Amino acid sequence: MTTAADRPATRRSRTSWGTFDGREVAELYDDYAALLDEGRYDAWLDLFVPEATYSVMALENVERGLPLATIRCDSRAMLADRVRALTTTQFYARRIARHMISAIRPIAVDADTLEVTANFVVFETLVDEATRVHSAGSYADRLVATADGPRFVTKVAIYDAPLVPTSLIVPL
Amino acid sequence: MTTAADRPATRRSRTSWGTFDGREVAELYDDYAALLDEGRYDAWLDLFVPEATYSVMALENVERGLPLATIRCDSRAMLADRVRALTTTQFYARRIARHMISAIRPIAVDADTLEVTANFVVFETLVDEATRVHSAGSYADRLVATADGPRFVTKVAIYDAPLVPTSLIVPL
Amino acid sequence: MTTAADRPATRRSRTSWGTFDGREVAELYDDYAALLDEGRYDAWLDLFVPEATYSVMALENVERGLPLATIRCDSRAMLADRVRALTTTQFYARRIARHMISAIRPIAVDADTLEVTANFVVFETLVDEATRVHSAGSYADRLVATADGPRFVTKVAIYDAPLVPTSLIVPL
Repeated sequence: MTTAADRPATRRSRTSWGTFDGREVAELYDDYAALLDEGRYDAWLDLFVPEATYSVMALENVERGLPLATIRCDSRAMLADRVRALTTTQFYARRIARHMISAIRPIAVDADTLEVTANFVVFETLVDEATRVHSAGSYADRLVATADGPRFVTKVAIYDAPLVPTSLIVPL
Repeated sequence: MTTAADRPATRRSRTSWGTFDGREVAELYDDYAALLDEGRYDAWLDLFVPEATYSVMALENVERGLPLATIRCDSRAMLADRVRALTTTQFYARRIARHMISAIRPIAVDADTLEVTANFVVFETLVDEATRVHSAGSYADRLVATADGPRFVTKVAIYDAPLVPTSLIVPL
Repeated sequence: MTTAADRPATRRSRTSWGTFDGREVAELYDDYAALLDEGRYDAWLDLFVPEATYSVMALENVERGLPLATIRCDSRAMLADRVRALTTTQFYARRIARHMISAIRPIAVDADTLEVTANFVVFETLVDEATRVHSAGSYADRLVATADGPRFVTKVAIYDAPLVPTSLIVPL
């Protein structure tokens, strides 16, 4: 059996969490999924700082270096407006979303912010239909420390497959 | 860059784990998924205390305040009977289930019990068929501390889409 | 309410992590999923020790005790060759994979190695198609401690449904 001493050190595959607490970061994503799926949008919005930006982009555009966002909110207030609009449409009650978020990883850290990537899959259930895969993709986020724990200052949801606009009624 | 000091404290989005250990709670759910998917039902049943109740409910009924359960077992012994019956039917061997559980969150805690919610997605594979989404939903559970770590005293699996009875051969 | 003192100790459902750190093991699987899905194969290969074996097996064969592997690489170099071959085919760019790994559990531990099982679901997106479930299954792995943290010395991906060979272009 090979032991650690037999083997030269290889490059570490990941950055540290810096001054951030990995468990608190995981809790932030757990809260993000649960509050969104329960439709508790006010509590969900509290996971963003006021100046936070929220964007949804197609992976194809990200890979091509195109800065086109399918959705872009430049502040938490704008995101709140968007969510409020969505929840008052007739479409709202007809969709149940379940977010599964995993592989939450620190990418870069400095004194104030932590860059994080994660994988997501969203499952959707429409009235009287079976649950299906809605979308999969990854997050490329920036977090800041607050008195309440880490919060999103940048959230970018990058989806793998082409999505039609009506698919984006519930935030990714 | 905004720092914590610039920003008023906002309402925390989650309860504490109280005297429970978050890591042990996560392990309970990991064990729940793994033992169920491996068909190790005796070990799986040990994750419940003897007086535990297990219910399966449709989200639609929960939202309407209807106390209708699709399945209800009022003790671990009753749950054991149900599982034993299922595993002796001809249907048993033909279904492989994979549970993915995430967003495990403390909701309320007192000296003895912890309320927890989580999201689940179950994938099912029938003989010679592709793997598909079986169901998605959430758990609304109560845990008690035991000498062996946290255990379920109440388990409620709330599924998002209408399910036909034959879909519920394997526990959610 | 039953308390711990009222109840006889039951058999614990899981092994300990031994000298391994459960959080580091979880990070290994997070890195595995993220690096694979981002196509960063060199960093992904670094998660294996040089003498590592990587196999892909059908659950049906595992259950029957048949040692047939759909894919078997007897060293990290062989795995690297395979990945290199795949990424240079015309099929490579057309598939986006998302791995969701959960229920990461210690099964057996000794001074040098840790056996771990986990559940996985892979989602696949082909050009201009919706994201779909590619496969689900479980890992049966062995890890060794290195100066860089735990690394795979044996990786076995056991898939639940019959898969056609072209489905296995991206590693599970």
